[in-house]
Amino acid sequence: MRLKLPLLLFLGDVADQLAAKTAQGLVDWRRDWCVAQLRLPGCRADTGLPDMDLRAAVANGARMMVIGVVNPGGRIPDSWQATIVSALESGLDIAAGMHTPLNALPNLVSAAERNGRKLIDVRQPSQKFNVGTGAKRTGRRLLTVGTDCSVGKKYTALAIEKELRERGVEADFRATGQTGIFIAGDGVAIDAVVADFISGAAEWISPDSRPHHWDIIEGQGAILHPSFAGVSLGLLHGSQPDAVVVCHEPTRKTMRNVAHPIPSIGTVIEQTLALGRVVNPDIRAVGIAINTAALDANAAEICLREAEETHNLPACDPTRTGVGPIVKRLQAEFGV
Amino acid sequence: MRLKLPLLLFLGDVADQLAAKTAQGLVDWRRDWCVAQLRLPGCRADTGLPDMDLRAAVANGARMMVIGVVNPGGRIPDSWQATIVSALESGLDIAAGMHTPLNALPNLVSAAERNGRKLIDVRQPSQKFNVGTGAKRTGRRLLTVGTDCSVGKKYTALAIEKELRERGVEADFRATGQTGIFIAGDGVAIDAVVADFISGAAEWISPDSRPHHWDIIEGQGAILHPSFAGVSLGLLHGSQPDAVVVCHEPTRKTMRNVAHPIPSIGTVIEQTLALGRVVNPDIRAVGIAINTAALDANAAEICLREAEETHNLPACDPTRTGVGPIVKRLQAEFGV
Repeated sequence: MRLKLPLLLFLGDVADQLAAKTAQGLVDWRRDWCVAQLRLPGCRADTGLPDMDLRAAVANGARMMVIGVVNPGGRIPDSWQATIVSALESGLDIAAGMHTPLNALPNLVSAAERNGRKLIDVRQPSQKFNVGTGAKRTGRRLLTVGTDCSVGKKYTALAIEKELRERGVEADFRATGQTGIFIAGDGVAIDAVVADFISGAAEWISPDSRPHHWDIIEGQGAILHPSFAGVSLGLLHGSQPDAVVVCHEPTRKTMRNVAHPIPSIGTVIEQTLALGRVVNPDIRAVGIAINTAALDANAAEICLREAEETHNLPACDPTRTGVGPIVKRLQAEFGV
Repeated sequence: MRLKLPLLLFLGDVADQLAAKTAQGLVDWRRDWCVAQLRLPGCRADTGLPDMDLRAAVANGARMMVIGVVNPGGRIPDSWQATIVSALESGLDIAAGMHTPLNALPNLVSAAERNGRKLIDVRQPSQKFNVGTGAKRTGRRLLTVGTDCSVGKKYTALAIEKELRERGVEADFRATGQTGIFIAGDGVAIDAVVADFISGAAEWISPDSRPHHWDIIEGQGAILHPSFAGVSLGLLHGSQPDAVVVCHEPTRKTMRNVAHPIPSIGTVIEQTLALGRVVNPDIRAVGIAINTAALDANAAEICLREAEETHNLPACDPTRTGVGPIVKRLQAEFGV
């Protein structure tokens, strides 16, 4: 996958900030790649980038427009297509990570051809996978898991990779979703793989490596989310993690896009370890990452302290406090 | 999907009986559709049908050859293709349920065109699915689950459908795998769906129905199998079963095609109920189906009695004893 920098991030008319998570991930981790955001009327997300229309973005150097949103089902609404066609006509290539490939939409394909532009789909796996075997691989692995979708699993994994590298530990972030792939430049959108090959694809993402090397694998979905748990379990088994970090958002009552209550952190730890033992009997939890953005500083501190005491694990907010204590625990537990 | 009867069942050169499970399922449940089996040198499976070559099969009326085997990854080996081409040249249509579609193999496609024959792929979903919602549906559902793959989940589901119908209860077998689809004439190969839509596809397979109607849903994989657990969990969540029946083979030490030990029936019940409660808090186990084919009559009886006593559930061998006691328990528990 080759991105043409700098990028214009398209947010469409999404109803909330979480739906713009691909754009937000690029802004958080690759700010210098991004020149502006483009929002349609009704859009309720904001990455903090300057708003520009196509003309202004191109005048400011933009060479590619990234569809920076996620939605259930991963389909591109008809109402966005006129803007995407205009972007192609303005000289921008387009990249997206939706289930519906850009290259499956005839009017986009013909507009791209007319204007000599490219449509890049990062979610469609370009390789064939084998069925997973569960065979033990060399090297160490950490997987971020969640009490829900969209709770910071990718952000936490990237923060842990950064922190480990700063401490001189060999570590690689392994992207398993469209936003992670945009940030890392490679990876596999695990939810777009044929179901029989989920764990096989996860094994492919994180192959044998040196004994003290850590793969920091981006989690997907949530093991108790009724829409996506199959993806999460296949990824857990294929990742065969030595360590897991549980990610959580403390103010949500129901899981994203469904009516089901958020499970407790304790339940998610218990289920993850029970199921993960199938492929790695020594799997253990090494920390809790809580997104406290919705809390004030005092409430955030109380929330983190309570989680630490309840679960006897370091609890951090990767944005607010960094992930130092989790990485310290990881190093202590595994002698790295 | 339209099968042209009668069928010639192709077993290739598979290494054991379990690998011929599509053929065996057709022989067990649709014997009158099948005219013969065709085996290549080295084949170690035998469905009990007469062996015929292509000429003899056609002379005996065969109109379609079914690729009657399953293998990890679902690929058609190059070494089978000459026979498949000969079958097309002999006037047979071909049907298969492998991941690799017949229609993706250029020499088969051109041979079919040259001979005016059809290639039918039952594993490729022909419809688009939505992401699962976990919303409660009307009607009742039973799902068969397993301590391993290939332990009789399909056979048990078909036997329960039959037994319920004989007792005057409305019931429909819902096929989720290639063999079940061949037997039922429709269904969705759940392991061939894109991972994000596993539970959504399972919801589609078993829609709202009348309050006392039972969908008997064919399980796939096993919740603790490192290759396929993601499929099994997505199917569990999408099925939102009221009742589960655990299927087991008592002589196996390791799970199929991997080195991992078979989990206990108790562990599988516990994990299935814990995970199934996400979508149906009232989920319960109503029976154990044990494939005792490898045991003598006395050992089989002891095995079933021990399972009953340990788990306080009726234990049957669907082939040897029928599933009467499980269905009786189902009726008692749910007042049907």
